[in-house]
Amino acid sequence: MSAIEFYFDFSSPYGYLASTQIDDIAARYGRTVEWCPYLVGTAMKATGHQPMVNTPMFRDYVLVDVPRFARLLGVPFKLADSFPLVATAASRAYYWLQGQDPERAHAFAKAAYHAFFGEGKDISKVDELQAVGDSCGTDGKRLAEAARDQAVKDLFKQKNDAALAKGVFGSPYILVDGEPFWGADRLYQVEKWLETGGW
Amino acid sequence: MSAIEFYFDFSSPYGYLASTQIDDIAARYGRTVEWCPYLVGTAMKATGHQPMVNTPMFRDYVLVDVPRFARLLGVPFKLADSFPLVATAASRAYYWLQGQDPERAHAFAKAAYHAFFGEGKDISKVDELQAVGDSCGTDGKRLAEAARDQAVKDLFKQKNDAALAKGVFGSPYILVDGEPFWGADRLYQVEKWLETGGW
Repeated sequence: MSAIEFYFDFSSPYGYLASTQIDDIAARYGRTVEWCPYLVGTAMKATGHQPMVNTPMFRDYVLVDVPRFARLLGVPFKLADSFPLVATAASRAYYWLQGQDPERAHAFAKAAYHAFFGEGKDISKVDELQAVGDSCGTDGKRLAEAARDQAVKDLFKQKNDAALAKGVFGSPYILVDGEPFWGADRLYQVEKWLETGGW
Repeated sequence: MSAIEFYFDFSSPYGYLASTQIDDIAARYGRTVEWCPYLVGTAMKATGHQPMVNTPMFRDYVLVDVPRFARLLGVPFKLADSFPLVATAASRAYYWLQGQDPERAHAFAKAAYHAFFGEGKDISKVDELQAVGDSCGTDGKRLAEAARDQAVKDLFKQKNDAALAKGVFGSPYILVDGEPFWGADRLYQVEKWLETGGW
């Protein structure tokens, strides 16, 4: 069976929450997960939506809801001063590393999310990105440099375009054998789908 | 303990899905539910959001997701030709009836939601609204007339303003002792909150 496709934006708190669960959920059903960072902003240009944190009323809700959801899941959460950020550098670094070593890229994605939302570090800064890379046993300096390579920029643009072409517009947005599930609060439905094969 | 506040728009499919569950969830914890129809459009003027069904990509998702969610819950779903509609008449009728007979108003709200999303009937039309009223043992003709009374219009405007003042912006939007939960996919968190008293 094909891998579960896990689309997320490194700047999305709900993507972070889902990222702490998705591998375990998949593993319970013998499935793997392909982590696919992209920029939700790309989809927002198509949908006309605004980030919830920039929207009156939604913002107040999100600031209550995300920490509460993190407590329910038992995962650390600390909102960075730099939130929201444009997660281009981390995403490009991820795809560069994926080309070298997919398993390490996976570890990097988890570590980058943890650094930003678990510890409140600004992963849009070169030194923090480098530190995350180093913590995963890759060459952080090389990783941070790679994020500025034109070829890597082009690759990430292709990844964004491909996500958009699949109709992906949110974070997290999960495809299970083509079946779409949007939102961290749908993880129980993702699990049910894996368990039952659909309903 | 105070009633759980269940805010919804009669034109919202996710509000409908939640409406089929919320009373049972509350009853399991000895709680009652105050049903509070309002117009999400009122909040959208404040938030700048658009209905998902009018938004590219979101629309495609919703048309997959809502029937799938209904199947998971085992509740009927039929998208009306008249969807989306402006649910002013049904909402006004509800508040008028609530002033006469709160239990019957509750039954009316359930029946109106079922007529629109379970059977695909256009509840913005006077004859359908009247039929829903009749099916609940009230005088449907009187109910449909009441929805056009100026006093009832004013009352509904107050209800909308009050929802907005509480920060309500979605459908469903559920307040459990002041704690907000947005979305039909949060019902499991509402239940957990009732079970544990919060976390």
